[in-house]
Amino acid sequence: MKISQIGEFGLIQVLKGILSSPIIGDDTAPVEINGETLLLTTDCMVEDRHFKRFYAPEVVGWKVISVNVSDVVASGGNALYALVSLALPDIEVAYVEGLYRGIKEACSFYGCQVVGGNITKAEKIVIDAFMLGKTDRFVSRSGAKPGDKLYVSGTLGDAKAGLELLLLERKKYEDFELKLIERHIRPTARIDYIKHIRKYANACIDISDGLSSDVWHLSRMSGVKISIKSNDIPVSEELKLFCKKHGRNPLEYALTGGEDYQLLFTHPEDRYNPFLDMKCIGFVEEGSGAYIDGETLHPMGFDHFR
Amino acid sequence: MKISQIGEFGLIQVLKGILSSPIIGDDTAPVEINGETLLLTTDCMVEDRHFKRFYAPEVVGWKVISVNVSDVVASGGNALYALVSLALPDIEVAYVEGLYRGIKEACSFYGCQVVGGNITKAEKIVIDAFMLGKTDRFVSRSGAKPGDKLYVSGTLGDAKAGLELLLLERKKYEDFELKLIERHIRPTARIDYIKHIRKYANACIDISDGLSSDVWHLSRMSGVKISIKSNDIPVSEELKLFCKKHGRNPLEYALTGGEDYQLLFTHPEDRYNPFLDMKCIGFVEEGSGAYIDGETLHPMGFDHFR
Ligand SMILES: Nc1ncnc2c1ncn2[C@@H]1O[C@H](COP(=O)(O)OP(=O)(O)O)[C@@H](O)[C@H]1O
Ligand SMILES: Nc1ncnc2c1ncn2[C@@H]1O[C@H](COP(=O)(O)OP(=O)(O)O)[C@@H](O)[C@H]1O
Ligand SMILES: Cc1ncc(C[n+]2csc(CCOP(=O)(O)OP(=O)(O)O)c2C)c(N)n1
Ligand SMILES: Cc1ncc(C[n+]2csc(CCOP(=O)(O)OP(=O)(O)O)c2C)c(N)n1
Repeated sequence: MKISQIGEFGLIQVLKGILSSPIIGDDTAPVEINGETLLLTTDCMVEDRHFKRFYAPEVVGWKVISVNVSDVVASGGNALYALVSLALPDIEVAYVEGLYRGIKEACSFYGCQVVGGNITKAEKIVIDAFMLGKTDRFVSRSGAKPGDKLYVSGTLGDAKAGLELLLLERKKYEDFELKLIERHIRPTARIDYIKHIRKYANACIDISDGLSSDVWHLSRMSGVKISIKSNDIPVSEELKLFCKKHGRNPLEYALTGGEDYQLLFTHPEDRYNPFLDMKCIGFVEEGSGAYIDGETLHPMGFDHFR
Repeated sequence: MKISQIGEFGLIQVLKGILSSPIIGDDTAPVEINGETLLLTTDCMVEDRHFKRFYAPEVVGWKVISVNVSDVVASGGNALYALVSLALPDIEVAYVEGLYRGIKEACSFYGCQVVGGNITKAEKIVIDAFMLGKTDRFVSRSGAKPGDKLYVSGTLGDAKAGLELLLLERKKYEDFELKLIERHIRPTARIDYIKHIRKYANACIDISDGLSSDVWHLSRMSGVKISIKSNDIPVSEELKLFCKKHGRNPLEYALTGGEDYQLLFTHPEDRYNPFLDMKCIGFVEEGSGAYIDGETLHPMGFDHFR
């Protein structure tokens, strides 16, 4: 049996079984050391799978740190220390310098630091980062409670549109297109939500694969039924313009487009914070499964092997 | 300028400069959290660079954990938690299962556990592991003191001979050849040395690139002169047999062969422990540089880009 027959998430289940580890399955792994909850996570970027060689190396460096911080934030934590493991062809040193300027800029922004790493040779560029964070209260994917509302930060679908635009490699882009491209190449982990998530969220996940898949992760891990309303899903003006121009449906981008690195979380309605760009898009009930406008929600997010 | 013009270690110096991080340069990065010294390290194995697809996946899994634990041991620590980040072609699930059986076996042996990881697609298998350890006393590469003796654990050069034998892909091997092959594919981190290193070593490094390079790392980082005596370098009976059979020089294997994952450390002579397989191979003086039998020692260890 090939990996593609069970998919990325089928494989994770198999590995979880072999390790017989109950801790696997969240955005970060919480481990207790001396009464402190530390959070461990890793995310990797591979040339031609996550980025192209023609991207400025600074944005690639920025992104690899951001996507790791995003997982720490989804667990209610602050990022502290990172390691960066590089597999590189014999490329220009200047490229790697650019990468590290981006890494450094991101670390300053998020308040963490790179304390080590590794270098090996390979045919394609692979940038693997590991992040250690900490929190007073670990927020998992499995704490959603019947009665909770489902919220999402920011807008969804922008990064997917941005990627499509970028891959056209046009010489000129309109302003709204540049904004979408920026969302793809320079996502920002929602550190402005840390306090809110840590204090109030019953469950949280960052949307890396796409809303339709990540709602399923929450529902399955929490053992609850989650329903969303398509009309409530926040999409940007830029995405609307893009979809109008190309005859596309913003909802499809919001449901299937990964890499927005927004947060999806649940808590009672009275915890709503009007000072954050959070939007209620659904609710949690007893039961199981994920639904959109009353129909089964099909997980159509990104899977590396599907 | 290409990476190959400055080499793996030249590139690390460049990156260290960009990050302006004093912490980079040791086998692990020590970070203080709540008065506890945690150790962070990462090491990666890439198909065709560190292993071949025809190796049993179990030994590849064993090795990726072992080489990470080895760095923690060299810092005087115990390994606690690991993350495993995989970049995989669409291979058989059974291969990945084998890999994880090896990972699990190694974790049981070393007393650590895998708490998470990542999966992406790629053209070649890349297995990147990240290890968190802890120690009461961090042992660095920079603490060697004039007056110290230089010691090494076990024997050197076996893994290089084992790799050469394995790459012949012969149907039959003699017993001593199988032992050498075992040293290459199934190295064991020297956890039996943890107490000794933690208690007594002024400086320590694990020999992953080859003695001749790793002596230089100790000398440079400690700002001392280190002299070794070629006759005192421990080589196994198996390596001697191998060299006799193929007309090779065991000393060359010991100096240039990496991946033995033995420990190289310094402390005063009266800390010698006869119950460990440690051997004095040199001494530390004021000054700089690394010498063998009075001549400059040329760093001929493994460099991914040279
Ligand atoms: N890509 C990188 N980014 C940051 N630090 C790095 C990187 N590669 C290596 N380092 C650091 O450089 C030092 C030497 O690395 P290396 O020779 O690989 O050590 P080891 O042989 O113990 O694994 C270590 O402190 C390591 O953390
Ligand atoms: N190769 C692996 N080995 C062990 N655990 C893994 C591996 N890949 C993923 N995991 C775990 O599976 C869970 C889901 O992974 P993933 O979907 O990549 O999370 P995220 O989108 O938050 O990065 C996480 O808890 C992660 O640690
Ligand atoms: C060149 C290119 N092609 C395709 C994509 C789309 N893409 C790659 S990975 C991904 C999903 C998220 O990445 P993953 O590595 O699975 O992160 P994780 O879920 O582990 O956080 C998407 C939408 C891209 N970013 N770049
Ligand atoms: C197929 C194959 N070719 C060559 C080697 C030899 N080799 C690969 S890496 C290495 C040195 C150590 O590995 P590295 O990734 O540099 O570890 P680190 O120094 O970072 O701990 C050696 C001797 C091998 N193990 N397998």
